[in-house]
Amino acid sequence: MQLILLSGGSGKRLWPLSNYARSKQFLPLLQTPDGTTESMVQRVMRQIKESELDAEVTIAANTQQKDTIENQLGNNVDVVLEPEHRGTFPAIMLSVMHLAFEKKCSDNETVVVMPCDPYTGLEYYEAINEMAKLIDENVADMALMGIKPTYPSPKYGYIIPEFRSSGIQEFRSLGVSRFVEKAEIEDAEALVKEGAMWNGGVFAFKLGYAKNIAEKYLKAKDFQAFRSRFAELPKVSFDYEVVRNATNVAVVPYNGTWKDLGTWNTICEELATNAIGNVTLGVNNVNTHVINELGTPIFCDGLENTVVAASPDGILVSAKKTSETIKDYADQLTDRPMYEERRWGSYQVLNTQEFEDGFKALTKTITLKPGKNISYQIHHHRSEVWSFIDGEGLFVLDGKVTKVKRGDVVNIPAEHFHAVKALTTLTFIEVQEGGPLIEEDIERFDFDWSNN
Amino acid sequence: MQLILLSGGSGKRLWPLSNYARSKQFLPLLQTPDGTTESMVQRVMRQIKESELDAEVTIAANTQQKDTIENQLGNNVDVVLEPEHRGTFPAIMLSVMHLAFEKKCSDNETVVVMPCDPYTGLEYYEAINEMAKLIDENVADMALMGIKPTYPSPKYGYIIPEFRSSGIQEFRSLGVSRFVEKAEIEDAEALVKEGAMWNGGVFAFKLGYAKNIAEKYLKAKDFQAFRSRFAELPKVSFDYEVVRNATNVAVVPYNGTWKDLGTWNTICEELATNAIGNVTLGVNNVNTHVINELGTPIFCDGLENTVVAASPDGILVSAKKTSETIKDYADQLTDRPMYEERRWGSYQVLNTQEFEDGFKALTKTITLKPGKNISYQIHHHRSEVWSFIDGEGLFVLDGKVTKVKRGDVVNIPAEHFHAVKALTTLTFIEVQEGGPLIEEDIERFDFDWSNN
Repeated sequence: MQLILLSGGSGKRLWPLSNYARSKQFLPLLQTPDGTTESMVQRVMRQIKESELDAEVTIAANTQQKDTIENQLGNNVDVVLEPEHRGTFPAIMLSVMHLAFEKKCSDNETVVVMPCDPYTGLEYYEAINEMAKLIDENVADMALMGIKPTYPSPKYGYIIPEFRSSGIQEFRSLGVSRFVEKAEIEDAEALVKEGAMWNGGVFAFKLGYAKNIAEKYLKAKDFQAFRSRFAELPKVSFDYEVVRNATNVAVVPYNGTWKDLGTWNTICEELATNAIGNVTLGVNNVNTHVINELGTPIFCDGLENTVVAASPDGILVSAKKTSETIKDYADQLTDRPMYEERRWGSYQVLNTQEFEDGFKALTKTITLKPGKNISYQIHHHRSEVWSFIDGEGLFVLDGKVTKVKRGDVVNIPAEHFHAVKALTTLTFIEVQEGGPLIEEDIERFDFDWSNN
Repeated sequence: MQLILLSGGSGKRLWPLSNYARSKQFLPLLQTPDGTTESMVQRVMRQIKESELDAEVTIAANTQQKDTIENQLGNNVDVVLEPEHRGTFPAIMLSVMHLAFEKKCSDNETVVVMPCDPYTGLEYYEAINEMAKLIDENVADMALMGIKPTYPSPKYGYIIPEFRSSGIQEFRSLGVSRFVEKAEIEDAEALVKEGAMWNGGVFAFKLGYAKNIAEKYLKAKDFQAFRSRFAELPKVSFDYEVVRNATNVAVVPYNGTWKDLGTWNTICEELATNAIGNVTLGVNNVNTHVINELGTPIFCDGLENTVVAASPDGILVSAKKTSETIKDYADQLTDRPMYEERRWGSYQVLNTQEFEDGFKALTKTITLKPGKNISYQIHHHRSEVWSFIDGEGLFVLDGKVTKVKRGDVVNIPAEHFHAVKALTTLTFIEVQEGGPLIEEDIERFDFDWSNN
C-alpha cells in the first residue's frame, strides 16, 4: 500500500503559533506516551509505525514546509512538493504521478490518501487497512472513510450510505447514496439521525484509476514535466473532481477516536499541560491553557475557559469558545513571520524599526546547526552586521574565507557576496539596515565549501 | 504653603508596566482634557496649577525615579532624592530639612504633604487649602485629610473623628478621637457606620514642628550632612511616628472624588480607551482593557472583565477582580527591568541568551536625545558592538573622538573607555557579550565634551 499524507493548510486558526512556514500540524504541542512532546504529523507517523500498517509513506506538502518536515521527520521521508497551493485534487494528482514515475509503482498498486494530522486512536489505521483491502480485492473503484459523528457539526462534509452491505466483508463497508458538502446545523441534525457519516478526507483507489483521471488533464513524459504544468490542473477538491464522479464507491465506517485539532478550543484538550513555556498560573484559573514561546514571562490569574498563546508573531488571548474568530483576524495580518525553523537552523526577529525617511532596521538572532550553512548571497538594498555570540564557523566575504567565533563581528555592506557555515552550533545577532528589509532582497549563488 | 509630593512605591501592583524605575505614578495612561495621555503625577501637577493653590512644590522621590521625573515634569521641579527606601517618616523628614536648609523656609511656614498620585477632583485642593489654613491660624499642630469612605475597605487606615467642632471654621474641621491602622471588612463596616473616614495620607504642619521632631533623631549642620545620615532614621511611617503622638490634631473631611489607582482593577476605570498600543479587539469582549507596549500585535476575543498588559518586562492576563494577586507574583520576579526611560533617552532589552559555559549575550535598542550623552565608562567583563541605525553623534573610544552616523558600527572590547553623545536623535543596536551582563558592570569617568 502506498500511503499519501496531505500536508496542506496555512494553519491560521492556530495563530500566533502557526504561520505559513509552520502550519498547525508541525506545532510540537501533543504529549507522547513517554512524556515528551510531538507535533500532529509526528504523532501520525508514530502511529503508522505502531499500527504495523504495510505502507510506504509519501508526504504531499508545500515548498515552505520542506525544512520543517526534514527537521521533524528526518531525511528519509519521501516528500512531494507542490509548486503552489491549488487544493486537494492537484495535490493528489501530483503525488500519484510521483508514485507512478519516480517510485515506479504499478497501476495495480493500492493508494490511500489521508490528512497528515487527524488526532485518532490506532484503530483508525485498521479502518485504512480495510479500505485498502476493498481496493485490493476490486470491490470498489474508490473507498472512503465515514467517521461516525459525535455531534451535528456544520464544519464537515457528510456521506450518506446506502443501508445495504456492499456484498462482502460482513457489513464492514457500505455503498454510498449521496454526499452533502456542508450542512447548516438543522440539516446536520437530520443527516446524523438518518445515519450519515462525516467525510474523513481519506480516499483509497488503484494508482491506475487516478492516473487515468490525471492524464485527462495533462499528459506528461515524466514527473518533472507533469509538475512544471501543475498550474494547468483545476483548483478544486478531490471530492468534487473525483469522488463525486466515481461510479463504484464504498464507505468504511469508523467509530473510534477522531478529532480535528484545528482550533485552539480543540487542541487545548490534548495539550500535555496547562502551561507551556515561561508561564506562571495564579490559583484562580479554571480550564485555562497558556503557551508561551517568548522569553518574557506571562502571569495569568482569574481566567476561565481561556487560551493564551504568545510567539514572536503575536499574542492571542481568547475565550476558548470564540477562538475560531482568530482566522479572520490572522487573514488580515500581512506581517512577515517573526520566527522560522529552517533546514539549516532557525531565526527570530527581535526588533524592527522604521524612521521618518523610510530607512529601516531589523534585528535577528540566528542559530545554525553544525555543518549547515547559509547560502552564498548578496543583498542589493541592505547592509548587515553579524555579532557572533556562540560557537565557531567559517565566514565568506567576496570569496575570502575566515574563521569566526564568539566575540567576532563582521560588517557586510550591500552588494557584497557573503555566506557562513557552522562548524559547531553557531549563534549570532544580525542587524540589517537599509531600504526594503524583506527576505526577498536576496540573490543566491553557489559556493564550494569542499576546500574549507 | 510648601507642598511635598511623596513619590514612593515600587508599583508592583501594575506589573508588567511598572518596575522599580517606572512606578505606577509615571505610567502615561490617563486621559487629559484635550484628549492626549498623562501620568498620575502629571495629572496632580496639572491640577495643582489649575486649582490656583498658593503652593511651592517639592517632590520626594527615590534615586531611580529622578530621570523619569525630569522627563515628565521638566527641569524646574524641586526634587529631594531619598538615598534608600525607608518609609514615609524618613522621607518627610528629609524633605523638611531640604525646605529648612536649602530653601531657607522659616519655622513658621506651613507644610502640606500629600501622595503624588491620588485620582481626585479639583475640590481636593480646596480641602488642602483648608488644612493649611488650620495650621496657618494655629488651630492645630497637625491637620489630616479624612476621605469619606465609599465602601468598607480593608485596605485603608481609618480616622475616627470627635464629633464636635474644633472651634472654628464653621465645622469645616473636627478633632480626632482615635486611629485604626487597618480593619477587617466586618470592623470596617462598623467604623464606616460610626462616621470614620479613610486616612488620605495628607498631613499639614508648621515646618518648625516637624524640624523639632527630626532633630530628636539627628542634628546636622546642613542638608547634605542630614542626608548622609538618612539610614539612622527609624524605618517607620509618618503616621506611626508623628501623627499618633501629636496632641492637637484636626481632620478636614473630604467628600469629593478620590480614587487610589493602585491596581489594574481601579486604573482600568480611568483609561482613555479599551485598547492602547498594537491591539485588535474581537467583537465578543465585555469590559476588557488591553495595553500593549510591545511591537508585536495582540488579538483578544471573548473576554469579560479582563485586563491584558504587555511590556518588555512581561505579559499579564488577569480577571480584573483578581488583579491584586499580581503583587505577590511580581515580588518573586528578580529579573532586571527590560525597559527604562532615562534622562538621556531610553533603552529596551530585545533579547538575552545564556550558553552552557555561562557566557551571556544581551541585545538592546538604545535611543539618545539630541545633545545628551552616555557617560564615559568602561566595562570589565563585557564587550559591546554598537550598530548605529539612525541619527548622528560623537563616539569616544579611549579618548579619541569620531563622528558616527547611521550605518556605522563600532566594537568596544572590555576594559576600553567609551562614550557617545547624540548630535541629533541617535538610535543604535547594542550587542553585549561576556560574563556578568548586568548594568552594574560599569565604571564611570568624566569626559570633557566642550571641545567637540
